[in-house]
Amino acid sequence: MIDTIVLGAAHPHVDYLLTEAAATADVRVVAAAEPDPVARERFLRAVQAPVYADPDRALAEHPAAVGVVCGVYSRRAELVIDCLQRGMSVLVDKPMCTGLDQLRAIERAAAESAGSLAIMFDKRFYPETLALTEVVHSGELGDLVQLSSTGPHKLLQPTRPDWFFSRHGYGGIANDLPVHDIDILLRLTDATSGRVAAITGNHSVTDHPEFADQVGLIIDTGGLLAMIDANWLQPDAAAVHGDYRMRIVGTEGTADVDWPRHRVTVTTRNTPERTLELATPTRPVQFYFDALRTGEQPAVTTAQSILATRIALTAQLSADNDGAWKTF
Amino acid sequence: MIDTIVLGAAHPHVDYLLTEAAATADVRVVAAAEPDPVARERFLRAVQAPVYADPDRALAEHPAAVGVVCGVYSRRAELVIDCLQRGMSVLVDKPMCTGLDQLRAIERAAAESAGSLAIMFDKRFYPETLALTEVVHSGELGDLVQLSSTGPHKLLQPTRPDWFFSRHGYGGIANDLPVHDIDILLRLTDATSGRVAAITGNHSVTDHPEFADQVGLIIDTGGLLAMIDANWLQPDAAAVHGDYRMRIVGTEGTADVDWPRHRVTVTTRNTPERTLELATPTRPVQFYFDALRTGEQPAVTTAQSILATRIALTAQLSADNDGAWKTF
Repeated sequence: MIDTIVLGAAHPHVDYLLTEAAATADVRVVAAAEPDPVARERFLRAVQAPVYADPDRALAEHPAAVGVVCGVYSRRAELVIDCLQRGMSVLVDKPMCTGLDQLRAIERAAAESAGSLAIMFDKRFYPETLALTEVVHSGELGDLVQLSSTGPHKLLQPTRPDWFFSRHGYGGIANDLPVHDIDILLRLTDATSGRVAAITGNHSVTDHPEFADQVGLIIDTGGLLAMIDANWLQPDAAAVHGDYRMRIVGTEGTADVDWPRHRVTVTTRNTPERTLELATPTRPVQFYFDALRTGEQPAVTTAQSILATRIALTAQLSADNDGAWKTF
Repeated sequence: MIDTIVLGAAHPHVDYLLTEAAATADVRVVAAAEPDPVARERFLRAVQAPVYADPDRALAEHPAAVGVVCGVYSRRAELVIDCLQRGMSVLVDKPMCTGLDQLRAIERAAAESAGSLAIMFDKRFYPETLALTEVVHSGELGDLVQLSSTGPHKLLQPTRPDWFFSRHGYGGIANDLPVHDIDILLRLTDATSGRVAAITGNHSVTDHPEFADQVGLIIDTGGLLAMIDANWLQPDAAAVHGDYRMRIVGTEGTADVDWPRHRVTVTTRNTPERTLELATPTRPVQFYFDALRTGEQPAVTTAQSILATRIALTAQLSADNDGAWKTF
């Protein structure tokens, strides 16, 4: 039995864990906690275990192997660190934290802990992403040199709590939305350093001046030039919450990924466009518990969780400094 | 009769003019010139008028209303200026020139000339671009806030002359390929100032170290955040020379353009995705001679030709300065 405890539930992604617990015989929620009564009712209503207002109390009273951290973004770091210091492993919604100081503290705690740390990078495990990763790793595209990605999301403003629109609660858009594509970039290239410039703007949510509804990142890893955008401007009437698309260009070929249309195409110097076959989708955090069950490290490693977060936070730092290039 | 004279023919785009002359009764090529004998044979073989090695001589001996400039990129500025100083109008292939000093000289000549200056911005007149422009100008997308564009091109290296791979002859990739999308950006937004950062790289044409096979631009006009990439890495086996795609995001809706598949879709807050109807394609420089014939200014104006070129050259300047932000 894999005992898990939910520490903060302020975003629908907490359902990833509850879905996994419902679908498996050996993932058990032993307790849950969320300080905000509205969020508690909204996100933890279905939990059969004790539900607390105070995450510290839940953690003190319910030993568990895994802490699942899904609360207000700026409060996640503290709970991640608490779990790691108890030797627990952590599965954390993105963004893992909202500041580089928080990230450094997490990194120190992780280095001293027996527990592992994994962000819920569900996009990495989508069938389209797996097919893309496989074709890149096969070498068919040659050396990857360019990545262009666009990541619009629906804001659905009335469904978002106040903290979501504040810098103190949310951090910035650059530390949040682009981190999935940064993770994919890192998996495709094994880059570990580089530089990033980012610009943010807010044109549609004018009643919340601290909020940004758009971000553009340019990342230069030396080998790869990545252009990543993301925004909260996906139209309400769109059929999909996020119309994510990515183009990956290598010295020998190009791949185009259209996630909502479940389509990955590859063209190379010698072979015309073909459409890749896709595997059956998995549940969003199935990768995590499948690994734990067999004693393996989760595919999203501690180091990967920290590096992707560092790049995203560095992008936000750039945006906060008028787009200045920042190294990571 | 609109008498035209070809001054330099070092790129297949000179066919735009020859196609127009063949298709119309009143566009007449009175002379042509290209110093390089190989290019002269390749691009001017079909010309029925006198063909010279020396553009100056052709210009001196054959009065014409329009100079069409399609030679080696770095030599275009001088011929553009010669024509303007004679009071002729100029239709010039992109890039119009390869340096900001050349551009300033062109700008001075244009200010003192009765002739107009138009770049062959054929992409602006593609049915997909016209449909996009119409929907943007209708206001249906609200205020435009983001543009993401990717512009891969086939290099077909054996077909390119040596000058194409040199900084002296070609300039840089940023002053060349992205200028079409910069022009479209300017038509959609009426922006006239802003800043740009750009990165270039060369991973596939390693036998020509002065060449760059990729570029990424981030443009901040204050109102619009644009991410534009372009490269010479379109796979040889692809069905199309350039698999151009663009996403335009406004405060009220999003448009996606897929040029080679002749598809433009629009989704707004209130209306689900729909596909726009497209007009019949025109010939690449038909817009230009249609205007001249009726005494109108070409739709691509002198000011627009200069501004788009300035942004592209400023992007190249940024790339040459390690991606530093540069204002335009």
